[in-house]
Amino acid sequence: MRKLKAPDVVIRRLALYLRILQQIDDEEGGRFISSKELGDRAGVNSAQVRKDLALFGEFGKQGVGYEIGYLREELRAILNANRTINVAIVGVGELGIALARYNLRRFTREKHYPFRLVAAFDNDPAKVGRKIEKTVEIFPISQLPERLPELRIDILIITVPADAAQAVVDLAVKAGVRAILNFAPTKLFVPPKVRLHYSDVSLELQQLAYYLES
Amino acid sequence: MRKLKAPDVVIRRLALYLRILQQIDDEEGGRFISSKELGDRAGVNSAQVRKDLALFGEFGKQGVGYEIGYLREELRAILNANRTINVAIVGVGELGIALARYNLRRFTREKHYPFRLVAAFDNDPAKVGRKIEKTVEIFPISQLPERLPELRIDILIITVPADAAQAVVDLAVKAGVRAILNFAPTKLFVPPKVRLHYSDVSLELQQLAYYLES
Repeated sequence: MRKLKAPDVVIRRLALYLRILQQIDDEEGGRFISSKELGDRAGVNSAQVRKDLALFGEFGKQGVGYEIGYLREELRAILNANRTINVAIVGVGELGIALARYNLRRFTREKHYPFRLVAAFDNDPAKVGRKIEKTVEIFPISQLPERLPELRIDILIITVPADAAQAVVDLAVKAGVRAILNFAPTKLFVPPKVRLHYSDVSLELQQLAYYLES
Repeated sequence: MRKLKAPDVVIRRLALYLRILQQIDDEEGGRFISSKELGDRAGVNSAQVRKDLALFGEFGKQGVGYEIGYLREELRAILNANRTINVAIVGVGELGIALARYNLRRFTREKHYPFRLVAAFDNDPAKVGRKIEKTVEIFPISQLPERLPELRIDILIITVPADAAQAVVDLAVKAGVRAILNFAPTKLFVPPKVRLHYSDVSLELQQLAYYLES
């Protein structure tokens, strides 16, 4: 599929629409949803829903709406959610383990969840060689360059300390990583071809604090 | 301090500038930093740095830059980081515990870290009454309305399952909460006076997946 140059906020909303469609129980199939209802659930107006979807194709019928099963499969194709996405975590601390378990549990329980944790990496000799939840092996970080292609890792989740994160990312970029989700509380630098998203708890808290009473 | 109607992205960058200034070791004091250097570390250009800061005041000197200690204290005042911000976590699962420990550790070790975890909430009778890290008591969620004012909770972190999150938020909003950081993988609805930020791991992964090869 051709990668459309859609704005990041549109992609974010598409991911949200997909989640909403997946949460709707539609075992029998054939149910329709209006742009109004989808928008209400997503917290945007119906015109926004129609505009976002129209960027990618003609998925609905005027006055009827979108067939839930059809739109869901189309969105899954657009967002690459119709294939398994291999994920690895670098940094097996508390946060890394919590994220690993969260991911493993969802992958096992939810038929639509496409993210499979295939490996973890850490430099602690006490952790290397062990397994998370008896299934996901912990490799030394130095093995990132071989393991990335070998395990077909699509997305790397970074949960190492802030001062170690850039070195990990540099190693992964050299090995050809395409997408990174960074939890380390620091700014990271990657070339333009690599997608880097942040999940930065203390930065979020600091932003929220601005809006409190002094 | 008067709340300026600055765009959210500016507040986000201010929080990032503050973090960078706090990471610079400046024990002796009196050191200056240029908008170029601050911008390089933050991943923005120097004009952006000057524009962001100029929204809030005149903090630097032409050709010299910003005195690190002075700018840091000014940013701390703007962002309410010069007082303790009380945080509570609702949902004491794996992610909740990992976030609690992360926060407690940073609050203990970093002199500039303003976020103090003062309480946790959960509905599991096996958890209620116990303490996280021997310091943070776990209350039943039904006690949110009393505990919010009593413990002067500024920010609520939500880590309950998706289908329980809106009810928790409704209870907290009624009790006067001002700021929420939501980790539950669902859209939440709050009145305009309440700040709501999302940290949504699976939505981030789904967005990143879009940019992968099909």
